[in-house]
Amino acid sequence: MTGPRFDFRVDAVDGKARTGRIAMRRGEIRTPAFMPVGTAATVKAMKPETVRATGADVILGNTYHLMLRPGAERVARLGGLHTFMNWPRPILTDSGGYQVMSLSDLRKLTEQGVEFRSHIDGSKHMLTPERSMEIQRLLGSDIVMAFDECPRVDRPYDEIAASMELSMRWAKRSRDAFDAGGEHAAGAALFGIQQGALDPELRRRSAEALTEIGFDGYAVGGLAVGEGQEAMLATLDFAPDMLPADRPRYLMGVGKPDDLVGAVERGIDMFDCVLPTRSGRNGQAFTWNGPLNLRNARHAEDTDPLDPRCTCSVCETYSRAYLHHLQKAGEILGAMLVTEHNLAFYQQLMQAMREAIAERRFAAFAAAFRRDYFAD
Amino acid sequence: MTGPRFDFRVDAVDGKARTGRIAMRRGEIRTPAFMPVGTAATVKAMKPETVRATGADVILGNTYHLMLRPGAERVARLGGLHTFMNWPRPILTDSGGYQVMSLSDLRKLTEQGVEFRSHIDGSKHMLTPERSMEIQRLLGSDIVMAFDECPRVDRPYDEIAASMELSMRWAKRSRDAFDAGGEHAAGAALFGIQQGALDPELRRRSAEALTEIGFDGYAVGGLAVGEGQEAMLATLDFAPDMLPADRPRYLMGVGKPDDLVGAVERGIDMFDCVLPTRSGRNGQAFTWNGPLNLRNARHAEDTDPLDPRCTCSVCETYSRAYLHHLQKAGEILGAMLVTEHNLAFYQQLMQAMREAIAERRFAAFAAAFRRDYFAD
Repeated sequence: MTGPRFDFRVDAVDGKARTGRIAMRRGEIRTPAFMPVGTAATVKAMKPETVRATGADVILGNTYHLMLRPGAERVARLGGLHTFMNWPRPILTDSGGYQVMSLSDLRKLTEQGVEFRSHIDGSKHMLTPERSMEIQRLLGSDIVMAFDECPRVDRPYDEIAASMELSMRWAKRSRDAFDAGGEHAAGAALFGIQQGALDPELRRRSAEALTEIGFDGYAVGGLAVGEGQEAMLATLDFAPDMLPADRPRYLMGVGKPDDLVGAVERGIDMFDCVLPTRSGRNGQAFTWNGPLNLRNARHAEDTDPLDPRCTCSVCETYSRAYLHHLQKAGEILGAMLVTEHNLAFYQQLMQAMREAIAERRFAAFAAAFRRDYFAD
Repeated sequence: MTGPRFDFRVDAVDGKARTGRIAMRRGEIRTPAFMPVGTAATVKAMKPETVRATGADVILGNTYHLMLRPGAERVARLGGLHTFMNWPRPILTDSGGYQVMSLSDLRKLTEQGVEFRSHIDGSKHMLTPERSMEIQRLLGSDIVMAFDECPRVDRPYDEIAASMELSMRWAKRSRDAFDAGGEHAAGAALFGIQQGALDPELRRRSAEALTEIGFDGYAVGGLAVGEGQEAMLATLDFAPDMLPADRPRYLMGVGKPDDLVGAVERGIDMFDCVLPTRSGRNGQAFTWNGPLNLRNARHAEDTDPLDPRCTCSVCETYSRAYLHHLQKAGEILGAMLVTEHNLAFYQQLMQAMREAIAERRFAAFAAAFRRDYFAD
C-alpha cells in the first residue's frame, strides 16, 4: 500500500469542537468520526458494504475476541482482517486490555501483563504490551491501541493512581514493541491511552507521560464505565485539553447520541460504541427525536418511517409497523434493518456535526439537537 | 395494476420436462421456478432486494403464520403483503391447511373446516375454505391456494381416500369463495391441490375432481411429508401427468436439489421449500458438489469460496474460512451470507434446468448434475 501513513489535518475549529480528516494508507477518516464495532470480524447483522454505505470510514476490531476466535495467527495466514472480513478501509483495533480487565474472576494482573482464561473454552492466555502489539500486527490493524489497564472509577485513589502509572509503563513498552515490529514503516499508526479516571491531576500526569513517549493519536480511556454522563462530561471539560491539539483525540466506548454531541463540544474527534448495533438487535432505534422502542404495541399499525428526517434506505422503504412485526416475530431481518438505520443515523449525526463545525455554528446545532432529542 | 392475469406459456418440452413462463399482473415467473419461503412476511435473514438479486421471480407467504401475526386484517390495513414487506413481485400464499394439520394436538377437523389454537398465544381460530380465501385476499396474494387437508402418507387407505374427498369438496368451496371475492377480476390466480398420497387411483380421482372445477394451476400436494425420495419420485411418475398439461404444476414443499431435478424430469413447473433458508441459518451450504457443513473444522483455514462454480456475491467475496468463523461465533452475518448463497444456488440450478430444457439436453444435464452432486 502507498499513500500517507497518518496525516491529521484540522479543517475548522468552533469553540473546542474540531472537524478535519485523517489520511491513511487505506483511506480517509472524516472527523469527528464514529467507528462501528466489528467485534468478531463482523459488524453484527451487517454486510460490510452496507456499513460503508451508512457513511462509516473506519471500523473497530477487538483484539480480545479475535485472539481467541479465530486466532490472530490464523487471521494472518488468511490474509489479515481486512481481507478476511471484506473491509478494505481503515480498521482500528483495541488492545484487549479493557476486555480482559472485565473478566474480573478469570484474570491475574502483574507488571508483565495479564493472564486470563478464555470465556469461550476456559483456555489460558497471556496478554502483555508486546503480545498485544504482535496480535494487532497479525490482524493488520491500521490504528493500533497501546495496551493499558482500565480500573473501575469507583476504586480508591491510590489504586487508580497506581493503575495509571502501570498503564504509562505499558504505553512505553507498547511504543517500543510497535516500533520494533515494523508497523510504523508499513503505514500503521499507534495511539496512546490517557487514564486517571475522574481526577484532573492523574489525567494531567498521564497526558504528560504519553506526550513524552509520543503517539499518532491519543485516546481518553477509563470513561463510560458506569460513572454517568454528568461525571463523564465533567472529566471531558479538562482531560482532552491536556492532549496534543494537533493529534486526534479518541473517546473510547462512547456512546449515546447526546454523549457524542457533548464530547465533540469538548474537543473529541473519534468514537466507538456497540450501542447502535446492540440496540438495533434489541429493537431500539435512535432518531432525531430520541430513542424509540419498536417492541412497543403503539407501533403495530404505524405507517411512518423510523425517522422522517433520516435518509437511510430503511427509512425510505419500511414502516414502523413492519419493523414492529419483525421484532415481535424475532426475525433476523428486524435486527438487520434496525441496526442499519441506527448506524446510518449515527453517521448522519457525525456528518451534521462536521458541517456545523465547518460553518462555525456548532453551539446552535447542539442546542437544536438537544431540544429535538429530548422533546418527549 | 394492469397486465395479464395469468398467462402460462410452455416454451419448450424435453421428455416430460417443460420450460416456460407465467405472465402475471406483478411480473413474470420463469418455469421451472423455485419460490423462496417468506413465512412471516420475510424470507428469513434476507432483504427482499437481495432475494430478487438471487433470481427469484416469486416468493411464498404463509397464511397460517400471517393470520396469527400480524393478522390478515392488519396486513390489509397496512396496504397488503407486497407493500408491508417491500416485495413488489408475485407472491403465492398457501392456504394454511398444511400447517394447521401439523398442529396435531391443537386442532379439530370437521366438514366445515379446522378449529385450532395458535402456537403463539393459545388463542382459538377457525380456518375454512371461505376464511382461507378471505385471508389470502386480505394479504393481496397473486397466486391463491385452495384450502385442503394433507394427511400423513402412512395413514390407512380409507382415511386417505376420505381426506382426499374432503379436500375436493373444500376445493369447490375455495373456487366459489375465490370467485365471489372478486380476486379473479382483480388479477389473482387460484390453484387446486391434488391429494391421494401415493395411490394412483386416488390421485386420478383427485385430478379429475379438480379439473372438473377448473383452476389456473394445479399443485401436487401431500408429498414431501416423510415418505422418502424414492416413494415421492415414484408418485411423480404418474401424478403430474393426470393434471392438465396447459397449466403449471406445482410440487409443494420440495425440496433438496436432487429432488428438484427429479421432479422437473417428471413434469413439475414450480417448487417452494424452506431448505435453502433454514439450512443457511444452520451453516449448511448447497453446492454443485453436494451439501457442505460449514461448522466442520476442515473449513477453518479453507480459502476457497463455498462453490467455485457459483456466481453469487458471497462466493465472489468470502472464503469458507470466514463463513466457518461466523458459524462458530454464532454471528447473524453467517446466517445472512449462507442463506443468500443457498438461494442463489437454487436459482442457478433452476436457470440451468430451464436452459437445458430449452436446448433439449435435459437428460444429459440431469446425469451430469447427479454425477457431480453425489461425487463424494
